[in-house]
Order: sequence, then structure tokens, then C-alpha cells
Amino acid sequence: MNKIVECVPNFSEGRDLQKVEKILDTFRGKKGVKLLDYSSDEDHNRSVVTLMGEPEAVKKSVIEAIGLAIELIDMTKHEGQHPRMGCVDVIPFIPIKNMTIKEADELAKEVAKEASELYDYPFFLYEKSATAPHRENLAKIRKGQFEGMAKKMEGDEFKPDFGPNTIHPTGGVTAIGARMPLVAFNIKLDTDNLEIAVKIGKQIRHLSGGFRYCKAMGVELEERGIVEVSMNLTDFSKTSIYRVFETVKMECKRYGVNVLGSEIVGLVPMEALTDCAQYYLGLENFSMNQVLESRLLSE
Amino acid sequence: MNKIVECVPNFSEGRDLQKVEKILDTFRGKKGVKLLDYSSDEDHNRSVVTLMGEPEAVKKSVIEAIGLAIELIDMTKHEGQHPRMGCVDVIPFIPIKNMTIKEADELAKEVAKEASELYDYPFFLYEKSATAPHRENLAKIRKGQFEGMAKKMEGDEFKPDFGPNTIHPTGGVTAIGARMPLVAFNIKLDTDNLEIAVKIGKQIRHLSGGFRYCKAMGVELEERGIVEVSMNLTDFSKTSIYRVFETVKMECKRYGVNVLGSEIVGLVPMEALTDCAQYYLGLENFSMNQVLESRLLSE
Repeated sequence: MNKIVECVPNFSEGRDLQKVEKILDTFRGKKGVKLLDYSSDEDHNRSVVTLMGEPEAVKKSVIEAIGLAIELIDMTKHEGQHPRMGCVDVIPFIPIKNMTIKEADELAKEVAKEASELYDYPFFLYEKSATAPHRENLAKIRKGQFEGMAKKMEGDEFKPDFGPNTIHPTGGVTAIGARMPLVAFNIKLDTDNLEIAVKIGKQIRHLSGGFRYCKAMGVELEERGIVEVSMNLTDFSKTSIYRVFETVKMECKRYGVNVLGSEIVGLVPMEALTDCAQYYLGLENFSMNQVLESRLLSE
Repeated sequence: MNKIVECVPNFSEGRDLQKVEKILDTFRGKKGVKLLDYSSDEDHNRSVVTLMGEPEAVKKSVIEAIGLAIELIDMTKHEGQHPRMGCVDVIPFIPIKNMTIKEADELAKEVAKEASELYDYPFFLYEKSATAPHRENLAKIRKGQFEGMAKKMEGDEFKPDFGPNTIHPTGGVTAIGARMPLVAFNIKLDTDNLEIAVKIGKQIRHLSGGFRYCKAMGVELEERGIVEVSMNLTDFSKTSIYRVFETVKMECKRYGVNVLGSEIVGLVPMEALTDCAQYYLGLENFSMNQVLESRLLSE
């Protein structure tokens, strides 16, 4: 069975599209790599690229792209609304098929090691690859941004995990690591009372006592005159979509409010949905291998 | 977006595995064709092969395999428990991705036309490709089997759709056509009363007033001391898994019996399951394109 990994590198260039195209070219026409999506934002001056494929092929193309970004992007001249610390700001690796989070972590470390040696460039391991709890959260690592990183890296708390002990003069520093796929999931309530969505959001989110892999908040959908509980599920294999959905329905009863439906924003791994089908149908002995498309993707 | 078709040719050889291997080789190592599964049955003296891939590539390899089957399999000497009329007995084409049943039908006709001309060999169009209602059902077409087909084809009702007006002397005749993917779905009831499963089977199956694309019967699972409603859903896009499941639950109430769970036997298209997730979660604006793996399969 072949393994499939997703990688979503964020590059600190969203205005000079010729440069962006050059970087994208490192992912095009490569055997075992598929460029799924990309978008450049002028205000953020940042491009987010989504690729998937075989771990070795993805690794190679990402290392190549890092080199090109160091060559093309000068962080001393970078301006934009989005916080950033490096020419490649962050590189998450996400296990998609026949792959564990541990294998994605190893892949991230291999990329960081090889690229740091090739380009004399520093990397922080973050998220599931982080070497200390205070280095898991990207926002915390990136605080101070490119301009403040050289100073920040002088202290013991933020020595890089690979590469030189300070920023690359024009490239900065990059966060790299493994994380689970995010599922952006919103549940619509049949009320315009924002307070109810806010309360339920708090009840189900990890921060205030809810599910371990759920970030949630209440949001008003003014055009429709309703509210929603808007979520990010950061590990659907442990905090299931259906479990969150049924819990929100259960909490809604308290307010005499109905759940109208839900929505998945953007991409979702097949398993996050078959998991729901399994629960609601009470499927016995189900295996992802029974899914036709899953067979097509395997060797 | 590339199209994906499934094809499940049934060959009338299940004992001489060297011959079977030669036929399987026509599907191996072909660009755009994936040999998913095969099994040979000695008693039936029959091999069932499952392949998937791009329509043009699948078409070519199937035409090649038909030629090889005509060459290798002598129906005048064929014995086995399974009814059969040709060296390739039946060739269904099933639309899997970015493909309509109409396109699968066209593909089946192209294969029949080209193979009939290449090998001077007759084909009946069946299922969704049938040219008359009495020629939809494979069992009806095949009645009389290889030994009776020459005579049967003399009448007007069973002239072949392609090729000569009689059987191939050693190869016989083949049914070919488009059909939807089958989903084998069983619902387990918390009772050992077979009568209840039989009654519910009748209520939900097309034959006796139920869902259009549902074949169902009651079955005893002696080892577990329970019964199940055992089904084939012949078009899950029109008779959904969840609709059948909820209907069986509803009927069970009448007997004070609980549904224990369910089971999918063998392969199932991703969409049959995401369809259930959509229903139970009330997903708005969901598209199969949001499924990561679906993107991976597309061009």
C-alpha cells in the first residue's frame, strides 16, 4: 500500500506572481506529486500551496521549493498583513493515507535536516513535531516576526531544531512539522440568538472544557438571520464530526432550538465522512479498504 | 477531470489457472488500468475479474482479453455449476467517477462493436444498455446456456446486437452493458425470528412494492442467533443506503425489535457513504470535490 502525505507550505510572497509561479513549478510535472491548490493574497503578501503525494517525492520537491524561496524572497523587504518569520513561513505535513502522524513527523524532520544542511537555513519543529510544549503553537513561535527573530533566537527557549543558531539574513526561519488534517465544520442553528451559539461553542471546545480536538466559536450569519457554531476539528480521528454534531444537537434542546444542518468548509479527508456513515448506520467490521476509491489510490 | 470506469468481466474458466493468468496479464502493467481483484472458482469453473481505470485504456485491455478468451476457452468442453453462455460470459461497465451511466453504456457498445468486428463474435447488450425490456435481465438472456444459444438466436427475440447472427462455434456469446455499482448491504435485527426479516425484506424490495433499486430477503444468522435483512442496492444514487436503513428501523418498531447495526459486504463507492454522512449531518452545499481523495483521483 502506498503512503500519501499532504503538505501545505506557506510562502511569504503574494504580489510578484512570477516568483510564485517559479516556486509552483517545483511541484508541477513531478512524478508522485500533485499540486492540488494554491492561492496568493496581495494584502497578506503570502501564497498558500497545497500538495499531496508520495512521501519521498513530496519531500524532494519541498526541499527544492525551500531553496528557491530562499533565493527569490527577501524578507528584509517583505511587507504584508499576515504575521510571518520566513520566506517559507510554515510547512505542515499531514498524513492522509496509510500513514501515521509519526511518519509525517519523521518526514518533516528529514526535510528540515536536509534543507538546513543544503541551504544553511534554520528550522523550528512545531505542532506534533515540537520538541517542547512551548514550541507547539505556531503563533507563539512566530511572535516577534522576521524582524524580531534574530534576537528571540539568542535565548535558550527558541534555539532552532535544525540549522544555524540564528536567522538566515534574507530568508528568516521556518516552522516545520506534522499535524493532523483540519476539518472546518459549521453547525447552523434555527435561531438569530448569537448568545446560544457562543454558549454552545464554549461547551464543546477544548479550551473551556469540551472535546480535546475542537476549537469552536459562535458566529452570526446575518444574511440568513441565523447563527452557527463554527469549528475547527484538529484531529477528526479522535474528535469525530458526528460526536460533535450530536453533542450540539443535545445542547440545543436546552434552548428549544433546532439544528438546521451543517457545512464542511474546504477539503475533508474521506475517512472523516465514512466515520460518520459508520456511526449512523452502525456498520460492523467496516474497513476503508472496502471503499472503491481507496483501492484506486493504493498500489 | 478524468473519468473512471469499473469493469467486471466474468470468464468461463476457473480450473486451468495458467489460462486465467494469461487473461489476467492483459490487464497487468497497462497504463490507466488497475487490476483490483480476481477470484477463480473451481466448482463454477469461472473467474471474476475486477478492473478500474480510464475508459479508453480499460476498453483496449478488455477487447484484448476477449480475443484471448475466445482463443483459450472452448465452450464445447466447458463444465461448471454456474450458468454460462460464452467464454467471456458477461462484461458489465460501471461508472465510478466523473462518468454517467450513459457514458458507460457508450463504452460498452464501443467494446462490443470493435470486438465483434475483430473476432467475428456475437454480443447481447444487457442491463442499462439493453435494446428491449426482455433483454435487460442477464438470467433471461442466458437461459438455455451455451448449448441452447444457437437455437435461441434463430428467433427474432434474441438476435445479437453486434456480430454474427449465431454463436461463435467455441466461444459462444457474451452479454455486455452498463450498470450502476451494486452495494451489498445487510441490516442486523435483534431477534431470531426469521419471519420478521422476511416480512421487512418484502416491504422494502422493489419486487413486492418497495424501493425501485432494492433487492432484499430475510436471512438467518444461526451462529449469532439473530436474523438480517440482506440486500443488493442496484443504484445507490436513487435508492440511498440511509433511506433503506431508516425504513427498516421504522418497520422494526412494529415488531418491537431493535436494529443492531449493519454491514457492507465487499466494495462500496465512496459516494454511497458520503451520501449517508450528508443526510445525517444535514450537510449543506456539499460536493464530492471537497473530499481530499477525490481530488487525488482527478486530473
